Amino acid sequence: MAGQQPKPLEGYSKYEYFNITSPAAFVAHVEINRPKKLNSFIEAMWIELRSIFNQLSVDPEVRAILLTGAGDRAFTSGLDVQAASENDSAIQAANSDEDGARTATKMRRHIYEFQECITAVEKCEKPVICVLHGISIGLAIDLSCCADVRLCAADTRLAVKEVDIGLAADIGTLSRLPKAVGSLSWVKDVCLSARFFDAAEALRVGYVSEVHENKAKAVAAGLERAILIAEKSPVAVQGTKELLNHARDHSVDESLRYTGIWNSAMLQSSDVSSALLSGIQKRKPTFEKL
Amino acid sequence: MAGQQPKPLEGYSKYEYFNITSPAAFVAHVEINRPKKLNSFIEAMWIELRSIFNQLSVDPEVRAILLTGAGDRAFTSGLDVQAASENDSAIQAANSDEDGARTATKMRRHIYEFQECITAVEKCEKPVICVLHGISIGLAIDLSCCADVRLCAADTRLAVKEVDIGLAADIGTLSRLPKAVGSLSWVKDVCLSARFFDAAEALRVGYVSEVHENKAKAVAAGLERAILIAEKSPVAVQGTKELLNHARDHSVDESLRYTGIWNSAMLQSSDVSSALLSGIQKRKPTFEKL
Amino acid sequence: MAGQQPKPLEGYSKYEYFNITSPAAFVAHVEINRPKKLNSFIEAMWIELRSIFNQLSVDPEVRAILLTGAGDRAFTSGLDVQAASENDSAIQAANSDEDGARTATKMRRHIYEFQECITAVEKCEKPVICVLHGISIGLAIDLSCCADVRLCAADTRLAVKEVDIGLAADIGTLSRLPKAVGSLSWVKDVCLSARFFDAAEALRVGYVSEVHENKAKAVAAGLERAILIAEKSPVAVQGTKELLNHARDHSVDESLRYTGIWNSAMLQSSDVSSALLSGIQKRKPTFEKL
Amino acid sequence: MAGQQPKPLEGYSKYEYFNITSPAAFVAHVEINRPKKLNSFIEAMWIELRSIFNQLSVDPEVRAILLTGAGDRAFTSGLDVQAASENDSAIQAANSDEDGARTATKMRRHIYEFQECITAVEKCEKPVICVLHGISIGLAIDLSCCADVRLCAADTRLAVKEVDIGLAADIGTLSRLPKAVGSLSWVKDVCLSARFFDAAEALRVGYVSEVHENKAKAVAAGLERAILIAEKSPVAVQGTKELLNHARDHSVDESLRYTGIWNSAMLQSSDVSSALLSGIQKRKPTFEKL
Amino acid sequence: MAGQQPKPLEGYSKYEYFNITSPAAFVAHVEINRPKKLNSFIEAMWIELRSIFNQLSVDPEVRAILLTGAGDRAFTSGLDVQAASENDSAIQAANSDEDGARTATKMRRHIYEFQECITAVEKCEKPVICVLHGISIGLAIDLSCCADVRLCAADTRLAVKEVDIGLAADIGTLSRLPKAVGSLSWVKDVCLSARFFDAAEALRVGYVSEVHENKAKAVAAGLERAILIAEKSPVAVQGTKELLNHARDHSVDESLRYTGIWNSAMLQSSDVSSALLSGIQKRKPTFEKL
Amino acid sequence: MAGQQPKPLEGYSKYEYFNITSPAAFVAHVEINRPKKLNSFIEAMWIELRSIFNQLSVDPEVRAILLTGAGDRAFTSGLDVQAASENDSAIQAANSDEDGARTATKMRRHIYEFQECITAVEKCEKPVICVLHGISIGLAIDLSCCADVRLCAADTRLAVKEVDIGLAADIGTLSRLPKAVGSLSWVKDVCLSARFFDAAEALRVGYVSEVHENKAKAVAAGLERAILIAEKSPVAVQGTKELLNHARDHSVDESLRYTGIWNSAMLQSSDVSSALLSGIQKRKPTFEKL
Repeated sequence: MAGQQPKPLEGYSKYEYFNITSPAAFVAHVEINRPKKLNSFIEAMWIELRSIFNQLSVDPEVRAILLTGAGDRAFTSGLDVQAASENDSAIQAANSDEDGARTATKMRRHIYEFQECITAVEKCEKPVICVLHGISIGLAIDLSCCADVRLCAADTRLAVKEVDIGLAADIGTLSRLPKAVGSLSWVKDVCLSARFFDAAEALRVGYVSEVHENKAKAVAAGLERAILIAEKSPVAVQGTKELLNHARDHSVDESLRYTGIWNSAMLQSSDVSSALLSGIQKRKPTFEKL
Repeated sequence: MAGQQPKPLEGYSKYEYFNITSPAAFVAHVEINRPKKLNSFIEAMWIELRSIFNQLSVDPEVRAILLTGAGDRAFTSGLDVQAASENDSAIQAANSDEDGARTATKMRRHIYEFQECITAVEKCEKPVICVLHGISIGLAIDLSCCADVRLCAADTRLAVKEVDIGLAADIGTLSRLPKAVGSLSWVKDVCLSARFFDAAEALRVGYVSEVHENKAKAVAAGLERAILIAEKSPVAVQGTKELLNHARDHSVDESLRYTGIWNSAMLQSSDVSSALLSGIQKRKPTFEKL
Repeated sequence: MAGQQPKPLEGYSKYEYFNITSPAAFVAHVEINRPKKLNSFIEAMWIELRSIFNQLSVDPEVRAILLTGAGDRAFTSGLDVQAASENDSAIQAANSDEDGARTATKMRRHIYEFQECITAVEKCEKPVICVLHGISIGLAIDLSCCADVRLCAADTRLAVKEVDIGLAADIGTLSRLPKAVGSLSWVKDVCLSARFFDAAEALRVGYVSEVHENKAKAVAAGLERAILIAEKSPVAVQGTKELLNHARDHSVDESLRYTGIWNSAMLQSSDVSSALLSGIQKRKPTFEKL
Repeated sequence: MAGQQPKPLEGYSKYEYFNITSPAAFVAHVEINRPKKLNSFIEAMWIELRSIFNQLSVDPEVRAILLTGAGDRAFTSGLDVQAASENDSAIQAANSDEDGARTATKMRRHIYEFQECITAVEKCEKPVICVLHGISIGLAIDLSCCADVRLCAADTRLAVKEVDIGLAADIGTLSRLPKAVGSLSWVKDVCLSARFFDAAEALRVGYVSEVHENKAKAVAAGLERAILIAEKSPVAVQGTKELLNHARDHSVDESLRYTGIWNSAMLQSSDVSSALLSGIQKRKPTFEKL
Repeated sequence: MAGQQPKPLEGYSKYEYFNITSPAAFVAHVEINRPKKLNSFIEAMWIELRSIFNQLSVDPEVRAILLTGAGDRAFTSGLDVQAASENDSAIQAANSDEDGARTATKMRRHIYEFQECITAVEKCEKPVICVLHGISIGLAIDLSCCADVRLCAADTRLAVKEVDIGLAADIGTLSRLPKAVGSLSWVKDVCLSARFFDAAEALRVGYVSEVHENKAKAVAAGLERAILIAEKSPVAVQGTKELLNHARDHSVDESLRYTGIWNSAMLQSSDVSSALLSGIQKRKPTFEKL
Repeated sequence: MAGQQPKPLEGYSKYEYFNITSPAAFVAHVEINRPKKLNSFIEAMWIELRSIFNQLSVDPEVRAILLTGAGDRAFTSGLDVQAASENDSAIQAANSDEDGARTATKMRRHIYEFQECITAVEKCEKPVICVLHGISIGLAIDLSCCADVRLCAADTRLAVKEVDIGLAADIGTLSRLPKAVGSLSWVKDVCLSARFFDAAEALRVGYVSEVHENKAKAVAAGLERAILIAEKSPVAVQGTKELLNHARDHSVDESLRYTGIWNSAMLQSSDVSSALLSGIQKRKPTFEKL
């Protein structure tokens, strides 16, 4: 990717904190773009994030998404705690003199809105390939947990940092991490101790599926994966994402039933014959917009 | 095993596409037997498969099952797409001129029947040790996901291949794979990209629990494991399979409760005293038929 | 730890089969103490265990718990089968001449009580770091599955031994192990075969998160981890344990909702500002009793 | 209906214990036909029942089903206890000298098969209108619980009779009755006391939705209802049955999601325009086979 | 209410199809206002509906909501089918020449958005008292199912009308009605037959909890109920709504746990002492904004 | 019952606030006995309640339980608010100066303990017949929701009173009432408005299943029902209670499965043949202790 400037993705120039480009056909690249602040998040950013992924979710020009952070130092250092302590409505609510029930009500609404913004990445109908590098703590874990495939650079330093600021993580890490990797002992260790873990450890426990030498190579690999996926049938790819997310949260019996109903509609696509024919003819298939 | 011809298992000679033998006491060996077509499945085969495993499930002569594919080249290359495109009622339904709702109804019934055939392996009351080798794609994953223990030969080449023919896998892989291995990033990667993964990778992520040098050694190891299990109390073994499958799909609280009720009946067996006594006397226990 | 005698934890001297000490501020060390019998459990012990962990759960002097076994040979060799066969009310019930329904009723009540005793470790509000060593079979797995973080010594020999005495494990292993590690093939292999696995294998599959050279070093590492956690905000730590356990057993949507409600109350603590301030001032924070 | 002999439904003449006729277009009438024994069930009958409803489920000539009992005296008096005590494999198993675990295994398989036979009525894709009359106890409740709409004659005498023969009902009544009517106090009263309740009480608590003067009028009303439903879009009707059964067993959120996927396929039918057009033209619509 | 013109509720004048007034302190009255078209819904209306109830949900000036339909003839006659057939994107999608999978995708998104709009009434944190009158079919049931309390006028004519236009209701009726009333036989009857039922029948089965002589009296009773609720502690009232909705969709154990966590925050309000003190002093309590 | 003094039930004389007698063979009568305070509950009482029902649950001399309140005026007027405001640890906690998280933690533990005490009535293995009379508000609903069968006297005045003291009911009413009666509109009405409802209304919505002229007659009817149940097979009766409670909280599929496993043990009783034989011989059966 280095050296070339990918063209902007049409319809996304309104966003302030994210660069959204189109590095290849049917691929969108969303880059968190606040590198001077280590890509830390202020409230306006997670509201933009929700809007971006809701738009991508139904954009027929997009079939796979690459999510990265700008700059060399961090994917994201998490919530901008300083900005939050100055402006955050929830934290200010907690400081007011209203009673605990009223404070809790504001907190609850605030947490649900924040969760919903991050969850937009998971609910986006298109697969999201997330590439982590450098400092990747707090919200970096909440956010990357919502991606479908996680790759990282060798220099990545990760931590579920929330206990160190006196709170249990509530934007998604504690809900998703136990289902993203296999070792519950490891999950509890990193969540209770807030200790750092590196790329090798993330690979060993399965949090990421590949580690690359540096950020550039990791991003290149992520893009390659996104291109590979974007070339396939969007009906097949988006169904696969939906059904895997459903399976994570349901029994096998429930999931089989849901799958049958899903595919009773989705098999009625021209993609099956396009794919089969292309296979026989040894050429790349093209698929209708979805 | 090489060199000796295991005797056929009584009552199973009626099946056309599977060899069913008895290589050891209380062990059944089910071999997919269409090696010239890479053990690919036609409709008659998955209907036979259901019938075989339903029969094994309640056959008191069987306490452990080994599942393998005939020939050197493939465990199975999946659905016989050519045969399916010629004969498959669902695919033909999709080509008819009836409306989308009516096509969907036929599709749905078809998928549920196909799922049920594969699920028969999981619902079989006896443990199933599956040994993969060579080409093991598509239905190979759906099917081996239903086995209890998976081993493989070093030459195994696996892939969740369905997106490459334009559809989301709907016979079980997407429902079971997220619960068979720990890394959701890896699961999504292989399901969305349809890329191949080899024996070493399958071991690293935990899809198989052992890799052996070649097919013969893998099958021998699988048989050894089946024999080991078949020598144990069938009450204990079959209860263990049932309770582990239940646990996968339920909360710990639900699972503990179910376990208590299960064992309130199943502890009333003579196997406990047989096992304890044999332990003291340093001899192999024998257990009543189940 | 060697050489120094940690002081007893106040209020726990009444227990006979467990040493309960306070090796560091806010840390409790629970040691199974029946080394001559390989720390095997008799009924009085699991009833004590429940009582101890219920007491620790609400003891404001305790913020992290270390769980180990006394002596060099075993964490625990499981149920004291000999004592059980002589005294166990359930086993005796099974031998009486009452009908199967009545025996089952006694069995069921007995299993539920036994389960509840072991589950007390999981339901304890404070994190439990379990250090395994030597023989660690049967109940050792049930029990360590309830801990939050598992470490072990290099000499640890583990097995889900129950099928070898003619029964399916019913005190928790079969309910919790499939959710503690990622490879279901491995889980079924060890549960169906009752084979031993060592520390290295336990690490590879993620059952333990660290292996140390010997018991002393493993216990030291466990203590260090407990101290690290005990120094953090108890509101954050206990919330993290609760939310991770909830997530294991619920869908992500359910878990996010529960998390929001939990934190709407728990963010109303002084711990957030204490933690932030200490961070800025580079000193250790102190937190109010919880 | 009296006086006219409805023609047999094609393809169902093989059944011995049930009369299966076609009293109107797209309506099947299944009559339990063992009136000399009060329509009590022997094993062959519930196996026939499963086969019949599985066949009706996919028969394009059938869009609504009427289920009644032959003769004046009983819908069904339940299991033929005398025949069961002589022939029933499960009861004989219980009398054998094998151990409790082995007996339980046979019992469990037997109960599951019996449940599955009765459940076939619920799983049948077409709506089932059940008309009760006279003695309607034991299996009568299990069976009618699986129907979609229940009507009865004024002379109906109902009871959940199982506790009076020393067992908890296990073929479906205890699973379905709490969700079929609103008053849990009433459900527990009739299930724990085994007392009779009459048509008026069944109507008051909502177990039946209509009471008619006598059997003939109740059957006529049931037929009228079946005809009304059979004239409507089969896509709409069968979807409605499926979605209501799903809703009973799932949260509203789950159910809404399932509904959306179901209808994404099922709205692609010509029935919507047929129905709308017929509405405008004030004529009866016709719908394609389903 | 007659004769007096309630003042508009501040902040809601922007809505075109709904009158939103404040007939009493802390009470909002939402009136569907398209009486010439029998209050039938066009797409713009259900989008407004969502916006209105999302706004009411967090408006501290509102503690109870009355929902009615303008004019004498109808609460609502449901979807404006004519407008829908001309403009509705989903129905047009179905008519296009794209394949079934692509049509299904648009349908699915459309249904989910429509569901979400109606669900906003249920998710609104404040209780909603719905008063039905006149024609109340199709969407009228979907919508009133989302209200908390349902009253109606004696002239109300209700029907789950969807099967008569060739589709299974998919905006909420089939998901919520089985949990709103007790008799599943009745639910299936009215959903499968699309027959009308009147106010008396609605009361008998519990769909409404009161029937009043005419619309004016029913609305007056609804307002009285809303005022009664609005005078109570908003912490208590909104918690009660939330916990009852949670209980409908969860097991009792889950619900008790959720309740405990909810109230651990919400009991920290001044409302308890305000309420107790007012009780002693025999005066109306006042409660802080929420 | 009038005029005769039932003998005390052996082993229950230690309880202070409850009279526990044995009015008939295998029947226990638990009477709330604080009539001067309208049987209102102080903390010591609900702790006694738990202890009593835990003891009854496994007492082989007891097969059915009658639960009533002493005196003419009230079943119970609920929590003794005055005593609670003076002594209650949770309410005092809320008044202390600790932070909201710490207060919430105490609250949560307190609510869970209180819930557990009331839930003991539901979890008791024997059926509980509850007879309400006079004032029956607040805790009276929480408590009677846990009983299996509810009867009442004509003078009963019921209310879910909690919102009037500024809180959402958290001891069980909101979790259980939506599943105890069919009309959700009615449930929400009485829970949100805290209005009284009388015996006739309680019968109409199905909260009670019988209304009797006065307390004496209601208690006599309750006793009669308890005797009827106590004469039946305890295996059948206790299984029926367990399975109905399970069904309330699970899908039909889950419930059928659980039922099969339950009965695979519980059918192995001598009660079936005792019951059948007694039926033939027209005499009352006797059943072994359970």
